[in-house]
Amino acid sequence: MSLQERDKKHLWHPLTQYKLKPKHTAIVKGEGASLWDEDGKEYIDAIASWYTCMYGHCHPNIIESVHQQMQRLDHVTFSGLTHEPAIALGEELMKILPSNQQKIYFADNGSTAVETGIKMALQYFFNKGEKRNRIIALENGFHGDTFGAMSVSGLSVYNGPFEDFLIQVERIPVPFRENVEAVKQQLESIVQDGSTAAFVYEPLVQGAAAMQMHEPEHLDALLKIAKQHGVLTIADEIMTGFGKTGKHFASDHIKTKPDIICLSKSLSGGMLPMAITSCTQEVFDAFYDDEVSKGFFHAHTYSANPVCCSAALASIKLLQTEEMQANIKRVTAAHRAFDQKIKNHPKVASTRQCGVIYALDVISDMARYGAERDQLFNFFMKKGVFLRPLGHTIYILAPFVITDAQLEKVYAVIEEALEIL
Amino acid sequence: MSLQERDKKHLWHPLTQYKLKPKHTAIVKGEGASLWDEDGKEYIDAIASWYTCMYGHCHPNIIESVHQQMQRLDHVTFSGLTHEPAIALGEELMKILPSNQQKIYFADNGSTAVETGIKMALQYFFNKGEKRNRIIALENGFHGDTFGAMSVSGLSVYNGPFEDFLIQVERIPVPFRENVEAVKQQLESIVQDGSTAAFVYEPLVQGAAAMQMHEPEHLDALLKIAKQHGVLTIADEIMTGFGKTGKHFASDHIKTKPDIICLSKSLSGGMLPMAITSCTQEVFDAFYDDEVSKGFFHAHTYSANPVCCSAALASIKLLQTEEMQANIKRVTAAHRAFDQKIKNHPKVASTRQCGVIYALDVISDMARYGAERDQLFNFFMKKGVFLRPLGHTIYILAPFVITDAQLEKVYAVIEEALEIL
Repeated sequence: MSLQERDKKHLWHPLTQYKLKPKHTAIVKGEGASLWDEDGKEYIDAIASWYTCMYGHCHPNIIESVHQQMQRLDHVTFSGLTHEPAIALGEELMKILPSNQQKIYFADNGSTAVETGIKMALQYFFNKGEKRNRIIALENGFHGDTFGAMSVSGLSVYNGPFEDFLIQVERIPVPFRENVEAVKQQLESIVQDGSTAAFVYEPLVQGAAAMQMHEPEHLDALLKIAKQHGVLTIADEIMTGFGKTGKHFASDHIKTKPDIICLSKSLSGGMLPMAITSCTQEVFDAFYDDEVSKGFFHAHTYSANPVCCSAALASIKLLQTEEMQANIKRVTAAHRAFDQKIKNHPKVASTRQCGVIYALDVISDMARYGAERDQLFNFFMKKGVFLRPLGHTIYILAPFVITDAQLEKVYAVIEEALEIL
Repeated sequence: MSLQERDKKHLWHPLTQYKLKPKHTAIVKGEGASLWDEDGKEYIDAIASWYTCMYGHCHPNIIESVHQQMQRLDHVTFSGLTHEPAIALGEELMKILPSNQQKIYFADNGSTAVETGIKMALQYFFNKGEKRNRIIALENGFHGDTFGAMSVSGLSVYNGPFEDFLIQVERIPVPFRENVEAVKQQLESIVQDGSTAAFVYEPLVQGAAAMQMHEPEHLDALLKIAKQHGVLTIADEIMTGFGKTGKHFASDHIKTKPDIICLSKSLSGGMLPMAITSCTQEVFDAFYDDEVSKGFFHAHTYSANPVCCSAALASIKLLQTEEMQANIKRVTAAHRAFDQKIKNHPKVASTRQCGVIYALDVISDMARYGAERDQLFNFFMKKGVFLRPLGHTIYILAPFVITDAQLEKVYAVIEEALEIL
């Protein structure tokens, strides 16, 4: 029986309506920017498997680092005990994170990194005896699928069954040149009563909202207001982190630095699940007290798993190599050239780019996960390119190591798709 | 600088009040039931690093399986694509899970497996057009630290800062011989209005509540009532799963099988973070529809990561070996003999055992994470045994492969501790 047939029996895949789409393509091999299915067909992984495998699939340096670590120490409880891979990872992150970040808290996925950030912010004020229980987030943000993370996510197309159970969050529009003064006023009016604990945002690029982008200066204006009112700012860099915007972090483009940063996805180079919530010394200090209960009693069993730390260590080294930095510049320039060519195409409504992240909206009103969108997905798969359109947006976020020839193929297949739309 | 000193600079460990306890012991090596610190001192890992490394630290079969997989395929997006390790893991789980379980959903840690289970139950009724939004849980249960998982956790000693943000959950007492009729009546009166969606419970052993145990027949009486009223039952087997209770799952001791099961911890043998939420065909079928939005739109980026699947596959094979099954019987018998010896000790208030899980309460009113408890923890560490007392409970949940000599040492150190208390 084929893997595809066996898959159907017992697995339940996410984001899938089985009645409309029961089949999943079985991938058996990955290398560089390529994937191969069970029939030997090759695909370009043009979204780096949800923006994780940025250094290429099955990178030998990451494999070696993980293999070495597995033979020394697999896992220990991260309360009472510590270990070298976590310590080294903390040190390496300190060298590249915005300089106000001082402490590293571990989790296993993006949703829990966001939950950690929210809980840090709420307890920060609780510990100081300040009653602050309002959270602000950007419209159309996405921060994960657990109840806390869902609550701050504005993108609630499919949250219907859970809406009665979500934390109340104030949402403000994404700031652009046209509306920034109005959004600033709205934010001012929300925060002035001193009851806002945190402002959660995806800096520069809202990923799940189909790579919607905004300018650093406009976001900065909002962050300044938050800071003035003592609101803790939480940057969700789960998608944007580790080089994708052209700098190590999207926050590096913005003057006002966040109090708390959430990281995951390419943190561990697509090899293993891992997440981190970093914060300033000031946040940490609010938990430092003679009272035990002022400590942070949030834990996940596999927090700081040494093997995952070893994957992250190898990944962060790769990010900083000349080769990878050159790749980032190369892919960024290639997207820019493609944009010049495609942006005036009659089927293209608009285009946008931030570093290696490129998106174009086609003139169509496709539903986010509807039949028309699925046809487009199938077209790309048939052509050997793994792209996941979100509604009428086609976006590219390929591994940094994608070759020029592979990039040309991705562009060509997108152009072909425009012809048949 | 020592690892312990380096640790203090940038890491923030969970469940730790730094002002009282700034130091963490740095572990550099693990093998079998042993850990070694940076000074070469050996410790017996008598809680299997939070009940994960049940087959022993750094087991060569798990290392080999992971190493092989890393070289083939590290990761792919688990929506639209699939892969052999996830398919094989689903098939292997089907062979050992209660036979009513038919579908496997993937997550990265226990908290998110529980969030998945709760969301499945809520959407199950939403999709059927039934308004059911009440959740029931056992008193003193613990199910994780994200907002949804915290909400169903009755153990809320340190949830103060978050209480305004939790989902309302009805809590019922754990059933014992003395109160089971009263609890049955209480449950009947809650569920009779037909608005209860789910009943969440840790079967047989409530782990974080300090290994509190109850009898299968009493829990079964509650599950029967839930089923009669169409309430979905969610067994949190994150701690109890994979052999610890003497059978593969705690639910195997109980007549009425759960609709949904949450798994993590030793699922992947302590090598890598992974979690699974399994369910019946009936649950899955409620999401099968012409409407896209009736699908389950909950996803984590690293869902079903192939490398973690390969660790889980090797672990499940190990569980079923004659060697490991014999170890489970051996450790269970050793605990029983130790219990005979210790249960009448004047400092022992009570003892309890379920399979390889053994707990004793000392006569004392130590706080869960207070100074007296820390002294006891430090005493055990000094003696070379990693045990984490919870309040006045000392519990053992060692790797199945712990040797007889190591077991004797754990028992002897506990006896010594009783003398100095």
